[in-house]
Amino acid sequence: MLEKVEHIGIAVKNLHEAEEKYTYLLGVKPYKREEVKTEKVITSFFRLGETKIELLAATSPESPIARFIEKRGEGIHHIAYATDDIKAELKRLEKEGFEIITPQPKKGADNKLVAFIHPRSAGGVLIELCQDI
Amino acid sequence: MLEKVEHIGIAVKNLHEAEEKYTYLLGVKPYKREEVKTEKVITSFFRLGETKIELLAATSPESPIARFIEKRGEGIHHIAYATDDIKAELKRLEKEGFEIITPQPKKGADNKLVAFIHPRSAGGVLIELCQDI
Repeated sequence: MLEKVEHIGIAVKNLHEAEEKYTYLLGVKPYKREEVKTEKVITSFFRLGETKIELLAATSPESPIARFIEKRGEGIHHIAYATDDIKAELKRLEKEGFEIITPQPKKGADNKLVAFIHPRSAGGVLIELCQDI
Repeated sequence: MLEKVEHIGIAVKNLHEAEEKYTYLLGVKPYKREEVKTEKVITSFFRLGETKIELLAATSPESPIARFIEKRGEGIHHIAYATDDIKAELKRLEKEGFEIITPQPKKGADNKLVAFIHPRSAGGVLIELCQDI
């Protein structure tokens, strides 16, 4: 089962500038920065109600975030839904016709196991499932 | 003050097909459909925790949603933040350098006053503010 929108991931060019903008917008400061080396990104998290805003900046031109920005510009990159059983959800959604990018969930930011569903099977939206470790 | 992510708006070509896909994904059915004639869209809402997913389909080729899909394909269209004082928030954000598209909030879907902030002033993200009427 999906429980809530855990976070919304937003691709940005300059993390520091985007943090300032979102601090103005949301009226709260980021509660942490975290680098995810396997994804070549640095992230910054804001809490708003039960959902988080995750800013994502590339740390290398080969980062998926650098490629995303090159193709589409800055903007919303993914929606992440929380689940307490990521493996069961992946199985269920694969049966329903969703194309799973990461059949083996991997360690993501914010101490979570994460897996992704391809936008071409989900109406143009990159979907992340995440489960607390 | 912004209180929470009220909903995420997703532009879709075919509302019926997208409703089926999101019913599978979220494990819940849409709780309502609503046409917003001024915007030339028909919307469908799903509840998940404190946030909603709003599917948006064009009812005319001149709809902003039709133009969005033509340009960028289906996908995430906007993030809506809830506030209990939309006019004060618009004033505050304009001072912070955000470009307000709708200085006079208007009636949107789901019985709300809504206003939009231009993506070019908000890191490529179309931001909606909304307040219960």
